[in-house]
Amino acid sequence: MTQATQLQTKSAATFRALKCKECGEEYELKAMHVCEFCFGPLEVAYDYDALRRAVTRESIQAGPHSIWRYRPFLPVETNQPIDVGTGLTPLVQANRLARRLGLKKLYIKNDAVNMPTLSFKDRVVSVALTRAKELGFTTVSCASTGNLANSTAAIAAHAGLDCCVFIPADLEAGKVMGTLIYSPTVMAVQGNYDQVNRLCSEVANTHGWGFVNINLRPYYSEGSKTLGYEVAEQLGWQLPDHIVAPLASGSLFTKIYKGFREFVDVGLVADKHVRFSGAQAEGCSPIAQAYREGRDFVTPVKPSTIAKSLAIGNPADGVYAIDIARKTNGNIESVNDAEIIAGIKLLAETEGIFTETAGGTTVAVLQKLVEAGKIDPDETTVVYITGNGLKTQEAVQGYVGEPLTIEPKLDSFERALERSRTLERLEWQQALV
Amino acid sequence: MTQATQLQTKSAATFRALKCKECGEEYELKAMHVCEFCFGPLEVAYDYDALRRAVTRESIQAGPHSIWRYRPFLPVETNQPIDVGTGLTPLVQANRLARRLGLKKLYIKNDAVNMPTLSFKDRVVSVALTRAKELGFTTVSCASTGNLANSTAAIAAHAGLDCCVFIPADLEAGKVMGTLIYSPTVMAVQGNYDQVNRLCSEVANTHGWGFVNINLRPYYSEGSKTLGYEVAEQLGWQLPDHIVAPLASGSLFTKIYKGFREFVDVGLVADKHVRFSGAQAEGCSPIAQAYREGRDFVTPVKPSTIAKSLAIGNPADGVYAIDIARKTNGNIESVNDAEIIAGIKLLAETEGIFTETAGGTTVAVLQKLVEAGKIDPDETTVVYITGNGLKTQEAVQGYVGEPLTIEPKLDSFERALERSRTLERLEWQQALV
Repeated sequence: MTQATQLQTKSAATFRALKCKECGEEYELKAMHVCEFCFGPLEVAYDYDALRRAVTRESIQAGPHSIWRYRPFLPVETNQPIDVGTGLTPLVQANRLARRLGLKKLYIKNDAVNMPTLSFKDRVVSVALTRAKELGFTTVSCASTGNLANSTAAIAAHAGLDCCVFIPADLEAGKVMGTLIYSPTVMAVQGNYDQVNRLCSEVANTHGWGFVNINLRPYYSEGSKTLGYEVAEQLGWQLPDHIVAPLASGSLFTKIYKGFREFVDVGLVADKHVRFSGAQAEGCSPIAQAYREGRDFVTPVKPSTIAKSLAIGNPADGVYAIDIARKTNGNIESVNDAEIIAGIKLLAETEGIFTETAGGTTVAVLQKLVEAGKIDPDETTVVYITGNGLKTQEAVQGYVGEPLTIEPKLDSFERALERSRTLERLEWQQALV
Repeated sequence: MTQATQLQTKSAATFRALKCKECGEEYELKAMHVCEFCFGPLEVAYDYDALRRAVTRESIQAGPHSIWRYRPFLPVETNQPIDVGTGLTPLVQANRLARRLGLKKLYIKNDAVNMPTLSFKDRVVSVALTRAKELGFTTVSCASTGNLANSTAAIAAHAGLDCCVFIPADLEAGKVMGTLIYSPTVMAVQGNYDQVNRLCSEVANTHGWGFVNINLRPYYSEGSKTLGYEVAEQLGWQLPDHIVAPLASGSLFTKIYKGFREFVDVGLVADKHVRFSGAQAEGCSPIAQAYREGRDFVTPVKPSTIAKSLAIGNPADGVYAIDIARKTNGNIESVNDAEIIAGIKLLAETEGIFTETAGGTTVAVLQKLVEAGKIDPDETTVVYITGNGLKTQEAVQGYVGEPLTIEPKLDSFERALERSRTLERLEWQQALV
């Protein structure tokens, strides 16, 4: 690339430093994620005065139909980021689900159809790999519960980057296949995610690789802010009253919050008190447990749940998630595996959206909070659905019934139809008893 | 609904009749698909003068980010169609695949991430179910090779319509699960698609159901025109030089053609000679065979291919597809199952797009046509990818390698990495021999 081209593709950067979330120490914008003084996590800091001057509703709407319409809020310098159509997923007005639950204004933010690999991870990976290229990395990597591996492998293939991903060895078949197909190196680690993550921290120190959620984590995690920006824009430039989102590491939750605050700070939306509620699976609920017990520290657990994409026993941003739920008057709740499956089915039957176990967890927690009177029917509530059900089919296998097998003849069909209607009537009568 | 609301939600209809493609006989706009005089297929006819007056590039761009921005070109009356974000999928500039094949301007129209159910069928179903509601149907149905069942069940759930779908009993697990999850009635017919289709024609006559691809077929099939409109708009309001699309019934192919012609006719794009090439799987290639042999009739075959979504042995629009390929100086080619798998992998490795067997077929045919000199490297070529690989995982299982299983320890990782690099070198050396 000539110097002239480099100049053209570089924009006026609005991000200015890495800053420790604990002690405030600032660092150069390189690949690092832990404060050298207090070991706190680093976060990207922006020049909000510059942002306020640079960005309007109109300038955003004139941008691409992807997360890159919010580029000034993202930590990359280039004007030509890796754009594979990621983001601006539908905000669906979920009237049928709302009626079933007794709510009035319910929306689904549907990242089950995010591009290219059908989870919210495409947002963070698009940002991380764009930044990785800027920092000169040629091999990218990640520690993943599945969706992140899919996304890193796919977007690395598109961008022509070498890729090595690390996953727990017991992942769902769809998530393994959905990674292998892009031909990265795949390391299946005999251990849980927290062990995978520890191993990757060691590898990051010995190999010169860009780990999207380790040494590139400050850049990577900023991608989740777009889930806040988009909801605000899609609601007609206003904030909702209440959001419900899943909690794995807790990062997503904190970044939606940061996204809303930034939009208020730069004057794109009016200020509003938004309640933040988080969802965990009972079999891996260290954040929900700490919240329930009023603790401000999270005790690690050994995960055992069908919601494998949420199975992080030692969540890096758990305490920050608890802080947000408390100060916004939200909640953190957990549900068991049976409730997760019921949540997947409820969303599919009412809204035609097939989500994975993480989404089932979020819908089930939504239902639990409504039933407990912890969501007001009049609140404009947004539920974040973060992944696609085709990747975790084994979780619902055995719970969705079977097709009626018939011969290719009219009378065979009529008999089957009659049987199924009789069954439905019986189920209905039993439900009435 | 009050009469006032009805008036508000009804628009000035630009479609005026059903018209026989063979004899030109016209019919009222009801649920029917076969000419009563000559048994030819019926198609929707429009008032193009009204369209020319009503539609501009600006009016389209001001519309929703979905197929419904082209509503005046679609056969529905309502201003409030069922809009679940279907359409406007990315047109990806496929530079890495282009380089691998020796092309210069290659684009992928990526309906593997279409919403809500990840195939182009969401387009036709969104149109068919909107029309079904207008015509007063409360139960919708279809004969499907899988993707159509997914889409009909999901969108019917969202719209609150009863749903009964018919599939061949031997479909891929992902397509069966991807239907059952929405809780429709699913009839698994012990026979191939053509037998399923015949049975459904009988059912359509005895039950008062709206079969999207039988009695609603004239409306339904118009939805595929949006794959033509979108490519024209996304190329900056111009047509490509060459398109490659899969052929099952042949309908998609003919409707992309119709879409391009309509955009020329109403003055939205300049006229251009676009070459149309079609892709079939060798194990079900009645259209390719007829084309190769110079016939103007299609002889039905018994399908035997991994590309189950293309396994229509008696394609309703086969002769029209042949006609278009001939008059545009295109081609119709077929590939075997091994080539289909290689096509899936090639697209994933170069562009990060995981498609199903139909997409593998299309990429493999693209490669075959390039190698035979039948696509000029300078042509702006668009390849239509119509479905997602997560639904047909069994097709590539065993062909994508396995993860490297390691312990959660640095030395276990280093040994595995060394082994995989040695293997890569060996493969590279063998490739050179």
